[in-house]
Formats: sequence, C-alpha cells, structure tokens
Amino acid sequence: MPEFLVLKPPQQALATLLQNLELSPIAETIAVEDALGRVLSAPVRAGHPMPSFRRSTVDGYAVRAEETYGASESLPAYLLLAGEVPMGSAPQFELLSGHCAVIHTGGMLPEGANAVIMIEHTQQSREGEIELLRAVAVGENVLQVGEDVQAGEEVIPAGVTIRPAEIGGMMALGVTEIEVARKPVVGILSSGDEVVPPDVEIKPGQVRDINSYTLEALVRQAGGEARLYGIAPDRQAGMAEIVARAHRECDLVVVTAGSSASVRDLTALVIDELGEPGVLVHGVNVRPGKPTILGVCGGKAVIGLPGNPVSALVIASLFVTPVIERMLGKTSRATPGGQEATLKINLSSQAGREDWVAVQLIEENGEWFADPVFGKSNLIFTLVRADGLVRIPADANGLAAGSRVRVERL
Amino acid sequence: MPEFLVLKPPQQALATLLQNLELSPIAETIAVEDALGRVLSAPVRAGHPMPSFRRSTVDGYAVRAEETYGASESLPAYLLLAGEVPMGSAPQFELLSGHCAVIHTGGMLPEGANAVIMIEHTQQSREGEIELLRAVAVGENVLQVGEDVQAGEEVIPAGVTIRPAEIGGMMALGVTEIEVARKPVVGILSSGDEVVPPDVEIKPGQVRDINSYTLEALVRQAGGEARLYGIAPDRQAGMAEIVARAHRECDLVVVTAGSSASVRDLTALVIDELGEPGVLVHGVNVRPGKPTILGVCGGKAVIGLPGNPVSALVIASLFVTPVIERMLGKTSRATPGGQEATLKINLSSQAGREDWVAVQLIEENGEWFADPVFGKSNLIFTLVRADGLVRIPADANGLAAGSRVRVERL
Repeated sequence: MPEFLVLKPPQQALATLLQNLELSPIAETIAVEDALGRVLSAPVRAGHPMPSFRRSTVDGYAVRAEETYGASESLPAYLLLAGEVPMGSAPQFELLSGHCAVIHTGGMLPEGANAVIMIEHTQQSREGEIELLRAVAVGENVLQVGEDVQAGEEVIPAGVTIRPAEIGGMMALGVTEIEVARKPVVGILSSGDEVVPPDVEIKPGQVRDINSYTLEALVRQAGGEARLYGIAPDRQAGMAEIVARAHRECDLVVVTAGSSASVRDLTALVIDELGEPGVLVHGVNVRPGKPTILGVCGGKAVIGLPGNPVSALVIASLFVTPVIERMLGKTSRATPGGQEATLKINLSSQAGREDWVAVQLIEENGEWFADPVFGKSNLIFTLVRADGLVRIPADANGLAAGSRVRVERL
Repeated sequence: MPEFLVLKPPQQALATLLQNLELSPIAETIAVEDALGRVLSAPVRAGHPMPSFRRSTVDGYAVRAEETYGASESLPAYLLLAGEVPMGSAPQFELLSGHCAVIHTGGMLPEGANAVIMIEHTQQSREGEIELLRAVAVGENVLQVGEDVQAGEEVIPAGVTIRPAEIGGMMALGVTEIEVARKPVVGILSSGDEVVPPDVEIKPGQVRDINSYTLEALVRQAGGEARLYGIAPDRQAGMAEIVARAHRECDLVVVTAGSSASVRDLTALVIDELGEPGVLVHGVNVRPGKPTILGVCGGKAVIGLPGNPVSALVIASLFVTPVIERMLGKTSRATPGGQEATLKINLSSQAGREDWVAVQLIEENGEWFADPVFGKSNLIFTLVRADGLVRIPADANGLAAGSRVRVERL
C-alpha cells in the first residue's frame, strides 16, 4: 500500500512530458468576428498598406507647407479656398499653389497638398480666403501611406492569442477569415468508489464529483474543449475501458484518481497498458500534488491527477494547461491581467490631462519593463503591437524612466 | 466647426454617468457547468456541512488516539485489526478499545475512532495485529464535519465572477443550478461617410469599419452580449433612426462617431433628442479620447466614442466596461492575471520541494498584500476564498513576511 515514488521537480516533469509529445496545432478556418481568445495558426499579412491613402489627423485646411513658412499671428499668410475634401472619397481636384482646402479628420489629402493646418490656427479673412496664423511643416498632421503597416508586412504572427486589438487590425485590412488552432479535445474522468455525481444526495462516506467540473472549466479557460466521461469504477478492467475510449476520442486524457494510494496505482497501471511509452513520471516534488502521473500513450498525453480537489486544480494548472497551450501553438505573451513594470524611457504628457500610453512588456532577467509603442493614435496596429496601457495621471506632466508603472491589459 | 468642450476628468465623468443610471442586474437561472465567467446574482449557501462526515486525510489506520500515547519506535503500541473501512459508505462497525481499522484517504472514520495514524508509522507485527511506531493526537489526520464550510453558511456572495474553484465548490455542495446576472445587451453602431464594412474593397478616401468589431470583442470580454447595428449615415435623421432602434432593443448603446468634428456634434444632437436627461458629459480630459460623449436616455446609457480606433478602444475600456460590470452587479476582485504583492506573514515550507500556497489579495493604501488562506488541501472552499497561488521554490525553506511574491491567478 505505501507508495515509493521517485519525485521529479515540476519543471523537469513537464519538460519530460512535452519532449515525448508531437504537438503540431491543427488549423481550422473561422470568421475573425468569432476569433476572440483563439490562437492564430498562420501569420496575418497586410494585403495593402495602411493607411491606403494620405489622411488628415485633424480638422483644418490641406495646404502646401512651404506656402505657410513664416506665417504668425502678427504676420499671417493668406490662401484661397479651393473647396472641401469630401469624406469617403478622393478629392476631385488638385491643390494649386496659393490655395488651401477644407479637410476633416480622416479625409484624404488632395494632390499637391503635403500638410494640414489645424482649424484652431486659422481664421476666415474674407469670403473664399483663409488667414493662417502659424506655419506647418511638411507632413504635419498627416498620416502617410503605410505609416501603420506596409503592404506584405507580417502584421500578426502565428501563436498570438486574439484580443480586441487584433480583431480590429484584421478588419482594417479586410481580413475577415483566419486560420486558428482547433481547440484540443480533453477527455476528463474521475474515479473513486466514494465519488458520486453532483446532482445526487450523498450518503455517509460519499463525496460529490468536483474534479470533473473544475477541470472542465480549467480546460475551457486554457482554450480547450472538455468532454466528460463520468466516474470510472475502481477496478482495472472497468477503468481501462473508459480511459481507452477517452484516449480514442480525445487529444488528451485527464484522470483524477480516487484518493487512496491503491487507486492511484491503478491509474498508473491503466496508463501503462494503454500504449507506448506509458507512464513517464510518477510522483512530482510539489505540494499539493505529489502523486501526479504523467504519461504518453500512442502520441497522446494521459495525465493522472491526485483525487483531492485542491491538488487536482493546482496540478492541472501546472501540467494540463501547458499541454493545451502547446497543442494550440500559443506563444507566451505577458500575463493576461495587469502587470507591474519599470518604465524604460521618459514619457512626457500635458499636466491637467490623463494620458494612456500603449506599451510593450519586455522581460529581462526576470524583471518586467514597459517600453512605449509610439504611433499616432489613429494607428490600430500600434495597439496590436502593444501588451497594454500605462496611465499618466492628470496631476503629472510625465513619468520618468525607471518609474514603476502598472500596465493594464488591452 | 471648432469644438469648445468643457472637459471633465475621466473618474468624475464616469461617476456622473453611473449616478444617472439605475442599474440592478436582472437574474437568470443557468447550470453551474455553464457558469464559468458569469456573475452570481444571489449568494450560494451550504445546504449541509462539508465534509459531511469525518474523513481521513491519509492512508493508514483509524485509532483511538489515547491508545497510541507513548508509542515510539523503541516502545511500539499494539492494536488488533478490526477490519477495513470501505470507500464510499459508512463503516458497518464501531471501533472498540484496543482495535484499529484500515482506512484510505477520504474514508469515513468509524464510531469510536478519533484519529488516523499514517501507514508509514506502522507495521504489521503478526496476522491481525498492527504495531504503532508513534503516537497521534486526537483529530490528527482527520477532517472534521463542517471544517470546510458549515451548514447554512454563505459560501459565495453575490457579485462574484465564477472561476473553476467556485464551480467545484458549488458541485461539492450539490448546487447544480444558480442565479446569475443576465448578460447586458449592448447595441453598437459606427458612423462616418468614409466608413465601409470590412469585407469590401476600399476606394481612395474610404476606411473599413474597425470599431464595431473591436467593441464587440470588448463587450464580450466584459461579460456583455454585443449586437451590431452597422454603419449609420452622417445625417441626423438617418442616424437618429438607427440609434433609436438600438436604444429600444438593447440595454446600452455605443455609437462611434465619424472622425470629423461635425459628425461628433451630430452624435451629441441625436443622443440629446433620444430622451431625458440626454448628454451628461461632452468632452473628457483624457488622451486619447477627448471628444467622448456620455449620455443617459430613458434610464439607459448611450455613449458616443471617438471614431479613431485606438481612442475608441481605450475609451470603451474606461466607460463601457465599467457600465457593463455595474449592470452585472460585479464586485471587483483583484486583477484577473498575475499580481505582484507583499507577503503578510512568514510561510514555511520543506526545502527540496516546490510548494503552492493559496492566498487572498488585499489592497491597503494602494499596495497589494498576499495573505495566505489556511486549510488542509482537501478543502475546496480554501480555493474559493483564495484569489490565487504563490509559489515557494524548491530551494527555499519558506518565504519571510514582507517578501515580494507573484500571485498567479487561480
């Protein structure tokens, strides 16, 4: 009855398991609209540059920058009004020398124009003429063609878990269907003569099945699809039959053993007879969860978890979640929630206004750093490249490099 | 054309919006198995104590503790073997003085027994007799009735977002159906003459609709149900008609304005005519996202977001997510991902073994502390009370109070 286990450290146990598995994600095509939380299995490339035309970032007048040089409040420049750029179509005119044209945020620059002056820095002098109270540089207030992404550029690599920002980026490029990893099907069964389904009244000595349901939820959280096989009997033949069925029908099998040592040994026996190489690890040097069994049978992982519900859930997060993530081809991204980090560079902001700055999280020697992703705020791929946002409070006029910041999930 | 907005700080703007809304979650009954990520709208109480009988936490022998006192390797105690406790039912015998009984982990203690000695501390002396090499105290290796939860105790309060641990806790108690908040339906529409659906080829001056889809994903993440109303025309009558329909059919309406100032003003006009009190906030002191509009019409929030996709997503996380969470009756829990925190008390562990300890996260003056939740590892409600787990590495023999730890999401 006593167990004499050679206990492996958890990291080493997981490495042993993963080495013995061939895990290449199987792709399926789905609509981008349904892709939240799914893992991309082929990179997304830009079919065209973004923006696809020169766009104004402000409301104002499209101008030739060189014709504004030297303009000031005391010595304004004057330009004739050539017309208005319509929203949603190309302007039907070229901007001639000495002229300007009304343009709205997002409007397309007419040929001949190379900058936009904000409406706040102008006034109408007389009918058909605009007074410019300052100069603008070439390209000022303009998004250039391809400033967000270039044609042909890989904009989202395979392995990325899709967030709202990625959905937006793909929609912007007209990508409405993508290849994602099919959700691995995880077969779950409990065992133990004392275990009964949750919807029955328990008699003395009985406990309800908890593990099937906590594991089902954990599998869903990890991106898999759970299939429950009920409560297996504590006899080798009966258990072997159900485990074999789950093994045939699923990509990964998880068995939670009854709580006594004899039943745990039964699980190991069943796994060993299911296929080669069988049990790889029996006993992990971790608490809770020592009597964990990790096996591979015919290319599929079969994992035996301790029967007690806390151990089962903790151990599943150490071994079942990583196997699912590997089957999905998921590349690790910084943590899904908020993350404390050290700011890489100085960030300036205008005091009196709250600013939110997109950042990437970078791990260096076990420490997290937040590195701002620069880009005009119209660029959706600025967000795709970011892991989260850092808040600069209204009462600050910036944050110094080296400050501790909190990066909020995007 | 220029906008003269009185800019409100974001926190104040949100408070104004929430004050003007009556937000009581509407409950619906669902199966616990489908409840992952849903928000509980009525507390769950224990119908019976857990455990419901005295259980052994180890494999060994059920004994009367007082009959083991003084036992040691040099001076063992001897007890007669009365039989074996079956798994899954009550033992059919009382443990008489001078006797012990085989018991497995999870087995029910027989009447008369008050402790369990681990098998490792015993050996069989002769047929029908067990030698005890050490003493055990009353209650040692035993879970008492109600040690996890008491009958009638509120085990999960309303407002909690359901994780795998909560699902396990409810199943353990035989609770298979619960009341959760119905998902608020959020109507989403875009506007802008330059905006076209994502599946069409764009012409010069046009951009694809990004915001409908990033917002749809954000609404789902926040726990709502999104309904898309397409792209509204940039004319008051046309936009008003679609906004009114969304307002009738949904619990919350989000309009992303076309990018020019004139269209943003149109949104404000439409919201103002939709119902009382209309626009509450026009302009928020935040970047990106200054031209945000927050309104309430006939008891429902109507939010106008800036047209540019980055601003729309950032501002939606500041205003749309909190409104959805309030409609769900969600109580805030510490962040969903990992969280750095300061350990409240010393934690000891055995060097050479990795330990995972359940902790609660507590915020005090803006700083996070991790406070261990103690309980034997068989107690599922230990996890329900915990926010996450802290790892004690194998090469440590504990962690000192005041250490910085990383709390991994449960």
